[in-house]
Amino acid sequence: MNIKKLMVRALLLAEKGRGRVSPNPMVGAVIYNNGGIISEGYHEYFGGSHAEINAIKRAKKSVKGARMVLNLEPCVHQGKTPPCVPEIVKAGIKEVTIGMKDPNPLVKGRGIKYLTSRGIKVKTGVLGKECRFLNRAFVSSFERKRPWVVLKEGLSLDGKIASKTGNSKWITNEKSRIFAHLLRYGSDVVMAGAQTLRIDKPSLKPYLLNKKPHPLGFPARCVLTHSGRIGGCAQSVDNSEALIIATDNKNAAKKYLSTTGKASVICFKSINNLLEQLCIKGYNSVLLEGGGKLAGSFFDADLIDEVYFIFAPVVIGGERAVSAVAGEGCRFVKEAVSFKKWEVLDADGNFIFHGLRN
Amino acid sequence: MNIKKLMVRALLLAEKGRGRVSPNPMVGAVIYNNGGIISEGYHEYFGGSHAEINAIKRAKKSVKGARMVLNLEPCVHQGKTPPCVPEIVKAGIKEVTIGMKDPNPLVKGRGIKYLTSRGIKVKTGVLGKECRFLNRAFVSSFERKRPWVVLKEGLSLDGKIASKTGNSKWITNEKSRIFAHLLRYGSDVVMAGAQTLRIDKPSLKPYLLNKKPHPLGFPARCVLTHSGRIGGCAQSVDNSEALIIATDNKNAAKKYLSTTGKASVICFKSINNLLEQLCIKGYNSVLLEGGGKLAGSFFDADLIDEVYFIFAPVVIGGERAVSAVAGEGCRFVKEAVSFKKWEVLDADGNFIFHGLRN
Repeated sequence: MNIKKLMVRALLLAEKGRGRVSPNPMVGAVIYNNGGIISEGYHEYFGGSHAEINAIKRAKKSVKGARMVLNLEPCVHQGKTPPCVPEIVKAGIKEVTIGMKDPNPLVKGRGIKYLTSRGIKVKTGVLGKECRFLNRAFVSSFERKRPWVVLKEGLSLDGKIASKTGNSKWITNEKSRIFAHLLRYGSDVVMAGAQTLRIDKPSLKPYLLNKKPHPLGFPARCVLTHSGRIGGCAQSVDNSEALIIATDNKNAAKKYLSTTGKASVICFKSINNLLEQLCIKGYNSVLLEGGGKLAGSFFDADLIDEVYFIFAPVVIGGERAVSAVAGEGCRFVKEAVSFKKWEVLDADGNFIFHGLRN
Repeated sequence: MNIKKLMVRALLLAEKGRGRVSPNPMVGAVIYNNGGIISEGYHEYFGGSHAEINAIKRAKKSVKGARMVLNLEPCVHQGKTPPCVPEIVKAGIKEVTIGMKDPNPLVKGRGIKYLTSRGIKVKTGVLGKECRFLNRAFVSSFERKRPWVVLKEGLSLDGKIASKTGNSKWITNEKSRIFAHLLRYGSDVVMAGAQTLRIDKPSLKPYLLNKKPHPLGFPARCVLTHSGRIGGCAQSVDNSEALIIATDNKNAAKKYLSTTGKASVICFKSINNLLEQLCIKGYNSVLLEGGGKLAGSFFDADLIDEVYFIFAPVVIGGERAVSAVAGEGCRFVKEAVSFKKWEVLDADGNFIFHGLRN
């Protein structure tokens, strides 16, 4: 059995958990022996069994003496579910290949130690980069103490997200909008500026998709406001679900703390501080949606990790049209925010620039 | 012999004349018989022999009884050189396949008539669309009485062509700049706004390329000014070559008519009128370079036929940064200028959106 191919399989299984497991990581497990794959499993939803346990349980024959491939180190701690390593030992697995160590300080190598001390052979270093990439939001929450930040914008070739009259529906096509809803589905928080919420009234929910919901109701919606004017915002979103009101205005924060039932309030000192607070609340990823000002604030703070610029093959034009990235901007071209890795994807009449900051 | 393949060959030969034959069309000629291709030729430079004549002259054996493929109908009129049809007859060519009729009213079917009346078989309708596309600038000058207008801009993902401080060097990479110089080389006029000329001081010439010059000194450079302030522009470009000063300001026009030696002046009523005047002067194509205002004026008038947006994978950001397309812009997204045919090209770390309006 080719170990890299097995790890790719584990990653594909792990990916199936996207949108339902955060703030847990996405994990896939493959149990095999010389005869081939015996069993597979993945972490399906927050609060449910881990990938290792699912794979062991679902095996139709004994896994004693078999090997296991995991994209992430198995846990040793009691969380929503019991730790995985004792179960791996109990099942008689003789070798475990792990894509990456768990960055969670409660695990971080202790899963590996547990297994080796019980005589199980542990291999590491297989597609480690790819494993970290899959769980980049989870990794970010531990290593940087802030969520992974993704910006998505639908724009014209000349970088406009609305005409001079504020009209923005629809610049991009339906396929692109479904793509955008997939991004929402995979995010812990979807954020918009208050102005965008007032004007466009986006639901910020992945309502175009017919997918199983996240047990915690993710993505949470977050509205950013300086003025504190969010009149209309509350109506624009489904009132049955909570809204996070984030403001750097202490008076506005006080007002909402006393008057808003379903909303929770975050009062922040800087964009970085806002992200830290979201991380503490258990959100590993933030999707920025709409609002050139919002995008500008995050770019000015250099706190965007990944972008999806969805371009329609049109020119809106106009000095007074709405720019995709407002804010201060850079002074010189050489100081512009550049994307190290990127690709241009086809989207059925639109095209998507997908870039990674580092 | 596959007639379509022979026409493609004629088109490739014709293409070799790009940058040196305008306002003449690009033409390629292939002479063949059942044994294969006997001779080839193309219109190499303005004032030089036509493709048909070059192919006949260069044949190393007799072309009597052979066939000829041409992307454009042969001429019947005396221009810089004698008409081609008598030479085709004299050479004993028995069949001519023509990609498209010459839109020039001096020819327009008369070349075909001349040949058929002399007993030469004439075939048409082979890759006619492709032939028209190659000579779209030439066709435009006759059918629309205005040049074909191409816009080229180097911009950031967020549609900025300069930072808030006006800095723009360099957003795009060297490969993209060489590509831009190829566009200059293939254009009859390269146009910039006076402000761009004052700030960036582009030479507007294809100086990065080591190519044979056009006999008429194309591309001509044209500066568009409303205020009439072109101080610095004249210095920014090579004084040994003429500059066209285009203005909608009568007083400015008068001033330049009396004081400027090497410059010619066009006083226009509208962008459309400016293009008509350029067409009358014998320019079939205009390349718009730089200046969001210039691009905006042309988009507002819906007079752009083709665009090359050269994107760097960077975000400049900033409310006060310079937008790629200023002007008035559209009021509603559904009124945005859209490109029917387009492709995204790779440019070694940059990417290029190439679009056609219709």
